[in-house]
Amino acid sequence: MDVPGRSDIGAARSRIAGAVRRTPVLEVDLRDHGVDARVVLKLELTQHTGSFKVRGALNSVLSLPAHATGVCAASGGNHAAAVAWAARRAGLGADVFVPENATPAKLARIRSYGARIHAVQGYVKDALEACQVYADDQGLPLLHPYDTFETVSGAGTTGLEVEDQVPDAELVLVSCGGGGLYSGLAIALEGQAAVQPVEPEACPDLARAIEAGRPVPVDVGGAAADSLGAPYIGDIAYAVAAKAGIRPVLVDEEGILAARRWLWDSVRVLAEPGACAALAALLTGRVAVVPGQTICVIISGGNNESLPV
Amino acid sequence: MDVPGRSDIGAARSRIAGAVRRTPVLEVDLRDHGVDARVVLKLELTQHTGSFKVRGALNSVLSLPAHATGVCAASGGNHAAAVAWAARRAGLGADVFVPENATPAKLARIRSYGARIHAVQGYVKDALEACQVYADDQGLPLLHPYDTFETVSGAGTTGLEVEDQVPDAELVLVSCGGGGLYSGLAIALEGQAAVQPVEPEACPDLARAIEAGRPVPVDVGGAAADSLGAPYIGDIAYAVAAKAGIRPVLVDEEGILAARRWLWDSVRVLAEPGACAALAALLTGRVAVVPGQTICVIISGGNNESLPV
Repeated sequence: MDVPGRSDIGAARSRIAGAVRRTPVLEVDLRDHGVDARVVLKLELTQHTGSFKVRGALNSVLSLPAHATGVCAASGGNHAAAVAWAARRAGLGADVFVPENATPAKLARIRSYGARIHAVQGYVKDALEACQVYADDQGLPLLHPYDTFETVSGAGTTGLEVEDQVPDAELVLVSCGGGGLYSGLAIALEGQAAVQPVEPEACPDLARAIEAGRPVPVDVGGAAADSLGAPYIGDIAYAVAAKAGIRPVLVDEEGILAARRWLWDSVRVLAEPGACAALAALLTGRVAVVPGQTICVIISGGNNESLPV
Repeated sequence: MDVPGRSDIGAARSRIAGAVRRTPVLEVDLRDHGVDARVVLKLELTQHTGSFKVRGALNSVLSLPAHATGVCAASGGNHAAAVAWAARRAGLGADVFVPENATPAKLARIRSYGARIHAVQGYVKDALEACQVYADDQGLPLLHPYDTFETVSGAGTTGLEVEDQVPDAELVLVSCGGGGLYSGLAIALEGQAAVQPVEPEACPDLARAIEAGRPVPVDVGGAAADSLGAPYIGDIAYAVAAKAGIRPVLVDEEGILAARRWLWDSVRVLAEPGACAALAALLTGRVAVVPGQTICVIISGGNNESLPV
């Protein structure tokens, strides 16, 4: 396992500069919800392909050997879409493996970028296994959705933007599935801001790993599983969390869906459930807030076309 | 008619500071659409109440005499919601008049802010007439949706933010209904950026006024009528446009709906049709672009809960 450092994230930023969007930030007032802090949302769902995943996917594709002609990838949908987008941009073919219950929004995106879709029965774990068999058979590079040097370095570029856009942020809240974005942010912002991962109770990958003392397979479910339902926490994310003594905050289904509803009603931001876990932690009081501090909340994806009910 | 100046917009900014959001900006790449310019979207739909209208509504409410106990207003829904929000914030009652075909999203918002809703058969024109009768009868101040000193001054604060956030903007595109936002932007940015109003062909209020040499009643319709279907262009907006020799750009229904689809698919921004006219002008090539220039496009509202088809 090769854990990137801050300079690797800087190199990733240079590599993907001009191709990814610098996503906007928006300050909101949550005092009515008992949050006595300056809260700034980073609207990463406005990124190309509708999630932060293009940062890692493009960094991975641009780090391939020059003779590569194609790639394959598996994910709940967002990483697959991001790889499809990045591969097309680089002139490479892409085979992507997704659970057959991937949201229509994610499938439509992947198709629109010209990738071949392989729908697999089960969860991300099953898609990853099928993809590995295919990669070995075809001799294709497999771009893992969250646990590689390049993916984490790319995701971490989000943190360099937070540093520029919200320089006084003391706490950054981020939804955590396999931990690629969490660990990228933690590395990028080390010594500057605390980065707090938030997991759905139904997808407690990091929580179980901390309990076990190592990444372990976790059964996942719930409304956020299509984006946060990784089969296990990444080795890199586990190492970063363990080194810093970080424990994830857990949020329940109701809190996630209420946060999604609030984002739509109050900010006209339509995020996917998994992207709302971080905000849910704040709205449900699961995160200790120091009065007056500045908190940045990453809204990491928007690939679910259902309106909140 | 009292046309505000730039200093009046500065005063409005001070008056509403802290209560309205500084809405974010996002650079997008439209070269695939033949637009060889730096294009920056200002996401004003993330404003409180889902549209820019709170800027003018709050400025109007805070400019009332101290003895006022309530207000009334009429609009296609966005101004009514904004007045309801601003009145509640100031501890005033609000009676708002809307066309009976106002979108459910707008009606739900107005209700959530505690205003009394009066649904009126017909269009904005009919709601305005019913509101005027009620205002006279009850002795209540009527906050006009777009043609007062306070409303235009408040809307113009958007322009001061554009000045801060996109200092190199040479051209600002804005959807135009009654012209409150257009004229506010034009006053705020005079001498710094050209402000181009864009109207749906089905709501050509400013176009007809320029032809006639004065504001004239206009029949309105189409997908954007619930936000841009003003019965006539405001006197202030007409004066500002006439003085500067500005003619609106007109866009068709198809272009508006395609721009809405693009915003959702490519940026995960779900705007209402009227708010997409400005972008439609760019995507359909109706605006002359100087290669390399910076263009700011205002995405002015998001109160339509239907997903694009």
